[in-house]
Amino acid sequence: MEITCQSPPRPPQQLQPDSSNSGFSELEARLDPKLAELVKEIKDYQLTHGNLLKWVRYESSTQAPAAGTSVSITPTKFHRRCFDQAWGLQELMSELYIRAAADEDWLGSVFKPLLAQDPLLGPLWDVHLKVKMAGTVQEICCGIFRTDYMLHANGEDVLLKQVEINHIAVAGICHASNVSAMHRHLDRIQDSNNQDGHISKLPLKNESILNVVSMLGEAHRLYSPTIPRQQPACILMIVQPYNFNIADERPIEYSLWDKGIPCFRCIWNSVLTQTTLADDRTLLFRPSICSSEFEVSVIYFRAGFETHEYDDAGKATRLRLEVSRAIKCPDVLTHLTTFKIVQQALTAPEIVKKFLSSRCEDIKRVLETFMPMHLLDSSNEGLEMRRIAKNPNDAVKYVLKPNLEGGGHNIYRKDIPQFLANVPEDIWHNYILMRLIEPPATSGTLMIGDGVYEGEVVSELGIFATVIWRKQAARESHHTTTLEILMNKAAGWSFKSKPRPVDEMSVAKGYGCFDSPELVD
Amino acid sequence: MEITCQSPPRPPQQLQPDSSNSGFSELEARLDPKLAELVKEIKDYQLTHGNLLKWVRYESSTQAPAAGTSVSITPTKFHRRCFDQAWGLQELMSELYIRAAADEDWLGSVFKPLLAQDPLLGPLWDVHLKVKMAGTVQEICCGIFRTDYMLHANGEDVLLKQVEINHIAVAGICHASNVSAMHRHLDRIQDSNNQDGHISKLPLKNESILNVVSMLGEAHRLYSPTIPRQQPACILMIVQPYNFNIADERPIEYSLWDKGIPCFRCIWNSVLTQTTLADDRTLLFRPSICSSEFEVSVIYFRAGFETHEYDDAGKATRLRLEVSRAIKCPDVLTHLTTFKIVQQALTAPEIVKKFLSSRCEDIKRVLETFMPMHLLDSSNEGLEMRRIAKNPNDAVKYVLKPNLEGGGHNIYRKDIPQFLANVPEDIWHNYILMRLIEPPATSGTLMIGDGVYEGEVVSELGIFATVIWRKQAARESHHTTTLEILMNKAAGWSFKSKPRPVDEMSVAKGYGCFDSPELVD
Repeated sequence: MEITCQSPPRPPQQLQPDSSNSGFSELEARLDPKLAELVKEIKDYQLTHGNLLKWVRYESSTQAPAAGTSVSITPTKFHRRCFDQAWGLQELMSELYIRAAADEDWLGSVFKPLLAQDPLLGPLWDVHLKVKMAGTVQEICCGIFRTDYMLHANGEDVLLKQVEINHIAVAGICHASNVSAMHRHLDRIQDSNNQDGHISKLPLKNESILNVVSMLGEAHRLYSPTIPRQQPACILMIVQPYNFNIADERPIEYSLWDKGIPCFRCIWNSVLTQTTLADDRTLLFRPSICSSEFEVSVIYFRAGFETHEYDDAGKATRLRLEVSRAIKCPDVLTHLTTFKIVQQALTAPEIVKKFLSSRCEDIKRVLETFMPMHLLDSSNEGLEMRRIAKNPNDAVKYVLKPNLEGGGHNIYRKDIPQFLANVPEDIWHNYILMRLIEPPATSGTLMIGDGVYEGEVVSELGIFATVIWRKQAARESHHTTTLEILMNKAAGWSFKSKPRPVDEMSVAKGYGCFDSPELVD
Repeated sequence: MEITCQSPPRPPQQLQPDSSNSGFSELEARLDPKLAELVKEIKDYQLTHGNLLKWVRYESSTQAPAAGTSVSITPTKFHRRCFDQAWGLQELMSELYIRAAADEDWLGSVFKPLLAQDPLLGPLWDVHLKVKMAGTVQEICCGIFRTDYMLHANGEDVLLKQVEINHIAVAGICHASNVSAMHRHLDRIQDSNNQDGHISKLPLKNESILNVVSMLGEAHRLYSPTIPRQQPACILMIVQPYNFNIADERPIEYSLWDKGIPCFRCIWNSVLTQTTLADDRTLLFRPSICSSEFEVSVIYFRAGFETHEYDDAGKATRLRLEVSRAIKCPDVLTHLTTFKIVQQALTAPEIVKKFLSSRCEDIKRVLETFMPMHLLDSSNEGLEMRRIAKNPNDAVKYVLKPNLEGGGHNIYRKDIPQFLANVPEDIWHNYILMRLIEPPATSGTLMIGDGVYEGEVVSELGIFATVIWRKQAARESHHTTTLEILMNKAAGWSFKSKPRPVDEMSVAKGYGCFDSPELVD
């Protein structure tokens, strides 16, 4: 569910000027007048607040055209109880994953069957081994996480179910804040006559940017150089080139500067030329824009999560960053926990129990949000799953997910048997079969792609988390790594909606919209 | 110098996707690397802060593409002494004009020769007469003014000289604030290592939006309905349709809402259908976006200043607004003072003395900023001006300005004789010949249109003013209107630069850039 640079936004099909000077007159005629008015308000709001996607491939030397992200016109209903449940769970969910990331032996056993063949896992695990060999110089790690949920209708009951987790280059932080502020504005202009109790009805406020910046600022403060140096410290945001989604990155950078913390961007492909590693493994960065050299306090990854980024230079890039004294957001082991196989392995109650000790109530709360899922491996359960996956009648309640980092590339329902028929059975264990979440019916109004959709929608709630922890490497005598959690909080939310008939949720690909929840009892 | 909707921005010529996925690689190769880096920073800053022009003619039903306004890459040098002089003068300049606007007899005599033929003056004066006949129901007026200056090299000396004044639909309030904030950001990222005395070097802060909103808020507060009503009050912003420059209007609207003051936009052409005038002349407004009716406290004109807007419906529109109980920003008489003929009439020392009483020092300060200018009328001075205008050798030091509201349409230097040769002599009195301001040489770096300009530039400083006053109509026995000034302050600045070879300063037409001054001693 990350927004990557693979499908940059395009201009609307008709990019000839409308001779009537009113490109939206047609829409106005079709839409309810109030809805047409809202669409106009949204266009201008997005333009003046930078809620835009950049048309990177249409950029000229000095002009970067852009247009609004897809958004819902009105907030979409979501169960307050489930929102509160997800928010309340986040601290536990983050702890579960950072404890899993600290258990190298367990992670190694989970990855073992995939190590030889997964093109992203291999390079990352290799970086981990090399860093381990070099020895730790930075015990502090930090992370910006997002856990995604959907509602699952179970008879009369509505349950909160986990879709996936994201621990690297988590997107939507800025868009989610923006859409919340936009819906609050749209609400006040529609309801400005209602003076009584107005505030309580406003769409939910989202402070995700604020909280992320505050966590990065705290990590920056915690960073202490070994040797007092002349040069100032900076946070380094590692970014992808030609990114059309800078509106989801830049506000974090500007807010850090506003707090007096220098934050520079460095394109993934430029890390090797713009940084050096000092003998004491301090990471030094030379921005193109000024003559000073900076000591990097925190490396904030918004790149380095896609397989194609790990050619030889990419491997050297990640290694240099990872082996440095800078605090990583996140470190490679935490990054590795975003693989679907880890999510699947953590559905086993005994594993959750292992990481959350014997806190029975907590363990129960975590486990009840998981949908059944299993590797198509050769275990008994795996074989049973293979049977389901091959049978069109049974497969309709499932989704097949490749064992990759992040979202996308999923195969749904009756397409599964046909898809697997073309995959050699000896690599079926690279896929996970997961019970589909079946959301209850909700209606929504989305401004999506080049039109307005009014009808049944499906929403996905993401809870952001900001975490800082200190990890003391395992002594030779015993394998347990000591973990001290310095910050762990729910930091905001992201809410996306898509027309019900569409399976994949991706705003960048035009399948979904940023939205905000209207919490209902 | 207003940005109007007559020349909407266009996409860059090459709007095919660049196959190399790097439209700016060519520029990068040509430019100094640091400058190329700054250009990238500016593109993203503009996109994420909404410093954009909307491609209104390329709008689709749900997408409104936009791209950055032309801006200077670095602040341009300007004499601190002259900046301070302009700032210090603004209160006086505003007072001069509101006193002129209050003297209906004097205004009438100034306009007399033009009344029959000027297509904009006629309708506006007619509105004034009808309002007068109806009798005043609102004594309070307010205004957002901008006085524009350039530097004039007079031998070794550099003098501040007035270019023009703007009293209606004054543009640049938001762009000027934005470019100031942008230059401050660019400065800190280039100079972040310089810890000592860094702040004092930052480009000048601009609080124009804040001050304009604060004035409108105060006017809103001062508005008192005759009869206590059920409906809430709102500020009504009268806007042009298909406006590509909404980034210069919307932030004011949003800031008013943030202060709890409803502010709605009403398109000039929709005033007659969306408003009604109650019997007591209260102006009532029905927003399309909500079911409530609002009582209009303040009418903020961002439209109604162009001749083509005054067809029969346009005349009825202005009359309904003007005759209402709402506070006008500005009223029609103040609007009328923006005609060049008023600016010219106010260059006469005895007139300035008349309005500023016998404050000799103040009168001197105002007068010394005026360049010589005169109507091409049949007075002795007018005839001497005609002689200059017809002679190519003399005309090189002059600009010929049509006697219109606002800027543009000017004829420069040696083009004047040829231009006048095609104008019947009996309408030459519709033109003003003004001594050209000759700015000293300054260099600048501008991101303009589709490229970067490095070379000699000419800058124009605008000082914004926010003014509220109470005007008690003249009694029959004596003609003096009583004027009580309730607020009068310099409210911010606008700074624009253009390549020296270009005569006209218009950011919207691609001739100039928003800039901020680097004040030098």
